[in-house]
Amino acid sequence: MKSKITLKDIARELEVSISTVSKALKNSEEISRDTKEKIQAFAKLYNYRPNNIAISLKNKRTKNIGVVIPDIVHHFFTTVIRGIEKYANARGYNVIVCSSDESFDREVINMEMLANGSIDGFIMSLASETQQKNDYNHLKEVTEQGIPVVLFDRITNEVECDKVIIDDQLGAYMAAKKMIDQGRKKIGLITTADYLSVSKARTQGYRKALTEHNLEVDESRILKLSSMDMDEELIQQFFESTEMDAVLCVNEIFAVYTMRLAQRNGLRIPEDISFIGFTDGFLSEYANPSLTVIAQHGQKMGEISAQMLIEKVESEAEEETYQTKILEPTLVVRDSTIN
Amino acid sequence: MKSKITLKDIARELEVSISTVSKALKNSEEISRDTKEKIQAFAKLYNYRPNNIAISLKNKRTKNIGVVIPDIVHHFFTTVIRGIEKYANARGYNVIVCSSDESFDREVINMEMLANGSIDGFIMSLASETQQKNDYNHLKEVTEQGIPVVLFDRITNEVECDKVIIDDQLGAYMAAKKMIDQGRKKIGLITTADYLSVSKARTQGYRKALTEHNLEVDESRILKLSSMDMDEELIQQFFESTEMDAVLCVNEIFAVYTMRLAQRNGLRIPEDISFIGFTDGFLSEYANPSLTVIAQHGQKMGEISAQMLIEKVESEAEEETYQTKILEPTLVVRDSTIN
Repeated sequence: MKSKITLKDIARELEVSISTVSKALKNSEEISRDTKEKIQAFAKLYNYRPNNIAISLKNKRTKNIGVVIPDIVHHFFTTVIRGIEKYANARGYNVIVCSSDESFDREVINMEMLANGSIDGFIMSLASETQQKNDYNHLKEVTEQGIPVVLFDRITNEVECDKVIIDDQLGAYMAAKKMIDQGRKKIGLITTADYLSVSKARTQGYRKALTEHNLEVDESRILKLSSMDMDEELIQQFFESTEMDAVLCVNEIFAVYTMRLAQRNGLRIPEDISFIGFTDGFLSEYANPSLTVIAQHGQKMGEISAQMLIEKVESEAEEETYQTKILEPTLVVRDSTIN
Repeated sequence: MKSKITLKDIARELEVSISTVSKALKNSEEISRDTKEKIQAFAKLYNYRPNNIAISLKNKRTKNIGVVIPDIVHHFFTTVIRGIEKYANARGYNVIVCSSDESFDREVINMEMLANGSIDGFIMSLASETQQKNDYNHLKEVTEQGIPVVLFDRITNEVECDKVIIDDQLGAYMAAKKMIDQGRKKIGLITTADYLSVSKARTQGYRKALTEHNLEVDESRILKLSSMDMDEELIQQFFESTEMDAVLCVNEIFAVYTMRLAQRNGLRIPEDISFIGFTDGFLSEYANPSLTVIAQHGQKMGEISAQMLIEKVESEAEEETYQTKILEPTLVVRDSTIN
């Protein structure tokens, strides 16, 4: 099996990218006829057979893992990286990190660069722009070449690979239920647009908790920001025009900022208004009052992702099976809610 | 010039690492006699001359920049990366990040992995263990091979390369002077051991400000933690056993944690005790009260580092000259000090 020719071999011989070879063998219109003919002839000459690529690549391990995340200035993603490093380093693997900066193009460029023989597999969380475009060809190309991929947190059903998420819907449900149990009736939600898979699931959990407890979902109490970036102006407008006795926020920065708005308006936390955020970072821990959160267990998510990836990299199995691991979120109660 | 043989060529031909070649040519005892003889003979045969390596390597650009930082879960370092990415991406370079996790070994492994042809140059901040060991051979090997290196924030005089720092001594001086000008007499300092170059400079600035203003430096008011990691117990012991009316902290987490200790002890901030931290992250901005800080301008530091590196990568000059850029810190006044 080892001697069979791979996409990478063809790419190297003809001095083109793996992606060009992959596209040419699928007769893609993106590739010039000249190049396609050359690549197809070469592949035929050397009896290229796609099914053997994975096995061949596995014999040339680099012991490097490529991680592509949407944003490096974000506590959740950096704790996932720490978990990946912890597990991978202990098994002799290096971790290489690239940030897509929420950009589709940058995600594609990073993957192509790393897929070019530098790494044994990818651990990734999708850029918001990728989820918005709903275009996953760059991921499919990589998995079709037999390079293992593990998606975490921001995932898609469009790509067959291993996945790790927390149950975001359950997390939001637990948070909203906590507020309802404390007698709150006007529960607001600060989230982002539904194209982000995690925000969509959290919004569903929030709606479910309210509906199950016979509270009407008032759409004016839901703020959907365009991205995970802080938008102080929109949050302020929303807060000041909406009557709320509790606010659930999809990240800790939104929550801590909104707590300060409440305090400046003379509201007492948690007596007059309570707050719960997602992510359990320094900001939640050291805010004043400290923030009750749905912990996403980033480090554990990283360790599990690395474990799943390394198992695939080192596996001798010819038939791949994929699984999605769903971690349970935890409610960490602090001073921004009534205990 | 281009046809001259490089360390990398020798390493590739003999299937050993560049570092082995480098050590063998220096007759290092770490390398077996057999390997050394083979490498030295090969180098002689092909007229290997060290001075030409840099020029040869420059003709094989990868358009990738390798970044090695001590800690990925740290706001300052991630903002530097964002600055590097901003500048580098705009010029068609990719950025690859590896974390040393403050470990000397991991720093060496990461550098060897990336120096193996994947990148055009390094942007680095030293692991605390590297500064503690004071061993920079892995950096010297890389620069001697003609791979450009830019050191930022945690630097050393032992390696000749471009460097970017902020004036940490001035930053601490400005912070302490601000407190003195407000009539504070018992100014404490929470820092780390002096082997960290930045902590040493900040401690000097603090001492200088006190001395110049005729305040005695009371050693019992200085807490030196062993690392930048949070040590709640030690900080609590220190805070409760030390009389202070102002505290300067070398990072924002120490400051925000100590503010909460003060508040729990019934002290008013800034009336009874004022606080200034280093780093200007979300934590400082959204703490309650918000934290006055010495801003380190991480993003700008990243942009300048990338600019210096890319200039070296693209330079045709045979003689390299190196510079150290020193950025001025800025005092950002918020609610933890009297305005």
